[in-house]
Amino acid sequence: MSNINEVVVRYVAAWNERDAKRRRDLIASTWREDGIYRDAHRHGEGHDAIDAMIDAAQRQFPGYRVALKSGIEAHNGYARFSWAAGGTPDAPLYLGGTDFVVVADDGRLESVIGFVDAAAAAG
Amino acid sequence: MSNINEVVVRYVAAWNERDAKRRRDLIASTWREDGIYRDAHRHGEGHDAIDAMIDAAQRQFPGYRVALKSGIEAHNGYARFSWAAGGTPDAPLYLGGTDFVVVADDGRLESVIGFVDAAAAAG
Repeated sequence: MSNINEVVVRYVAAWNERDAKRRRDLIASTWREDGIYRDAHRHGEGHDAIDAMIDAAQRQFPGYRVALKSGIEAHNGYARFSWAAGGTPDAPLYLGGTDFVVVADDGRLESVIGFVDAAAAAG
Repeated sequence: MSNINEVVVRYVAAWNERDAKRRRDLIASTWREDGIYRDAHRHGEGHDAIDAMIDAAQRQFPGYRVALKSGIEAHNGYARFSWAAGGTPDAPLYLGGTDFVVVADDGRLESVIGFVDAAAAAG
């Protein structure tokens, strides 16, 4: 459980890391080599593809920072948590979602499947 | 998407079916032969084990009926939905959760991973 919390914290940090080298290192310590991320709009399989996917998201949403907005619920190597980004003057579009993850035996992520909870323009 | 809705409806029906033969048939049409269900408390792998697991839950919670309490959100063969049971005079303990499912190529469930959203005694 402690390890799951740590890998989720690294996962969120990877989405927020704008330094290319540090982001790539975070991805390698977060996902297994064949790990995947998939939501309705984005998909990456393996460290290179996940890195390119996050880089593209950062360019699409400059100034955004992802933050956990729930606890991390985990059992039997599975976990779910919710996140939010935006809703600020620099990042007005509010984005939120829930990710379901499968943790591999080595403690890194085997898969992250994301669902959108909210995406609405700020008033 | 239509097929995912149908398999989720069969899945909920399986939890509610008290007739042993009909429940077993629903399970076979809902899960792949090697399909799994797992939450923090229950686990079944394969039709026989899933059937025994649901039978035990029905005995533990007589009178309960599971109902969807959210839409079924799906993308790329993954789906999530929330359910509720109880909160009535016959079934006073309210139970609720969110299930995250992976749909196999044949349209049946490969895995269901459940998380508890609420479990509180009625007032």
